[in-house]
Amino acid sequence: MTPDAIARIKDSFAAQKMMQTLGAEILEVSEGLVRIAAPVLDLATQQQGFGHAGLTFSIGDSAAGYAALTMLPLDTEVVTSEIKINLLAPARGDRLIATGRVVKSGRRLCVVTAEVHAEAGGTSTPIAILQGTMVPVPR
Amino acid sequence: MTPDAIARIKDSFAAQKMMQTLGAEILEVSEGLVRIAAPVLDLATQQQGFGHAGLTFSIGDSAAGYAALTMLPLDTEVVTSEIKINLLAPARGDRLIATGRVVKSGRRLCVVTAEVHAEAGGTSTPIAILQGTMVPVPR
Amino acid sequence: MTPDAIARIKDSFAAQKMMQTLGAEILEVSEGLVRIAAPVLDLATQQQGFGHAGLTFSIGDSAAGYAALTMLPLDTEVVTSEIKINLLAPARGDRLIATGRVVKSGRRLCVVTAEVHAEAGGTSTPIAILQGTMVPVPR
Amino acid sequence: MTPDAIARIKDSFAAQKMMQTLGAEILEVSEGLVRIAAPVLDLATQQQGFGHAGLTFSIGDSAAGYAALTMLPLDTEVVTSEIKINLLAPARGDRLIATGRVVKSGRRLCVVTAEVHAEAGGTSTPIAILQGTMVPVPR
Repeated sequence: MTPDAIARIKDSFAAQKMMQTLGAEILEVSEGLVRIAAPVLDLATQQQGFGHAGLTFSIGDSAAGYAALTMLPLDTEVVTSEIKINLLAPARGDRLIATGRVVKSGRRLCVVTAEVHAEAGGTSTPIAILQGTMVPVPR
Repeated sequence: MTPDAIARIKDSFAAQKMMQTLGAEILEVSEGLVRIAAPVLDLATQQQGFGHAGLTFSIGDSAAGYAALTMLPLDTEVVTSEIKINLLAPARGDRLIATGRVVKSGRRLCVVTAEVHAEAGGTSTPIAILQGTMVPVPR
Repeated sequence: MTPDAIARIKDSFAAQKMMQTLGAEILEVSEGLVRIAAPVLDLATQQQGFGHAGLTFSIGDSAAGYAALTMLPLDTEVVTSEIKINLLAPARGDRLIATGRVVKSGRRLCVVTAEVHAEAGGTSTPIAILQGTMVPVPR
Repeated sequence: MTPDAIARIKDSFAAQKMMQTLGAEILEVSEGLVRIAAPVLDLATQQQGFGHAGLTFSIGDSAAGYAALTMLPLDTEVVTSEIKINLLAPARGDRLIATGRVVKSGRRLCVVTAEVHAEAGGTSTPIAILQGTMVPVPR
């Protein structure tokens, strides 16, 4: 990817106030793959004290959306058309890592997946998988 | 519903820090239906300034989960097993209203739906529908 | 709907050999709603002798797709982009009825739902709900 | 896997009349993975002459379900709780191959995925991905 293409992703991410609220940051941007990390902040917990499904969803959805964006022209943004999440385990640990991947990139639709892991101590546990569709829109 | 059953839902909701962070509140609890409202706070926006998909998802998922809980024994909690969201329009407006409903309540699984509307001025626009599965767990 | 618009749906349906194989027929076509019925033929059963999930899916998906088509120009076809099914009960009974509905019709994407009931004796039991996206394509 | 465990899968598959109708056969059974093939028979086509989404779904769902069954006790069957399919390309070619995989196997729920490819001449094209939940039930 060109520096411009990577900067475009990082600029868009920085403009998402929801990502700042959740303490999320981009770890990796490469063609067809974006990795996002977020701590399990107290402000994003559910009633049992684990990370809320909305936290896991938010970073999984963003990683998948930006993965789609890595394969689109520079004057494009993406919006989520639909996405489904299967939760595998509670979101507990030091931080969550979401990895978004492009399955098929098209002019009108991009099919994407994401997986989210929770890191605690030295171990990494899969906590969710997502599968969805992103739609390119003019920037 | 008994006052105890309604209190149980409200107590669980109050313990979800994510809901407080998003400014969400419960509007209605009845058998098989829960309604949750949230403003589109600046802290929950995406890169275009609209509400983040994670906001819409979070209140839709919570409304659906608590709808499931209205039909379960008092010593039960629910967790989301899986849920899918189709986004219909940008989340813009004064506040979002998520209505969760039970489609089928079982001992092991509850199938639920939710719809989310955005209110702006006097109008209400559907912005998302969700369909998913909740799993009862011991409290 | 005009007779031409209804004929267009019925012609397309008649060209689907899968629908003939399953013994499916169109019961109703109106704007934004299509109803399809199919018996639970022995050739479409799963290992316990009930209707296969593929049967329930096939008529639910077709009802949803044709519901989308009722709201599109006459020179259009639709294809399924994605669809999700939650199964509620075994597909047993005399026949299955799938009702497809349009949630939002757009130029590029149509969001649809369907529900499938099983009729047995005089009773009707919901056995599945579907939620998905149809994409208009040139005929 | 033991010969008994493999035979259990093949016996269950053989009892699915829908699989026979579609000409489907099991290609591979190993722990956590099942592969099913089916030709695109004329009887399973949609209105444009390609394989119906119901065909792709049926073998994808069955491959995912049997993958789940490879990791469950011998006196168990599985039923599909919910599954979502994203279609990537038309189902055209000599035959379709569905590969089901287990993501997480639990006592109450198994999360699974499947991908479906179309083979034509010497090439293989991905045409669908599925993500869903299987539920163990007594045999």
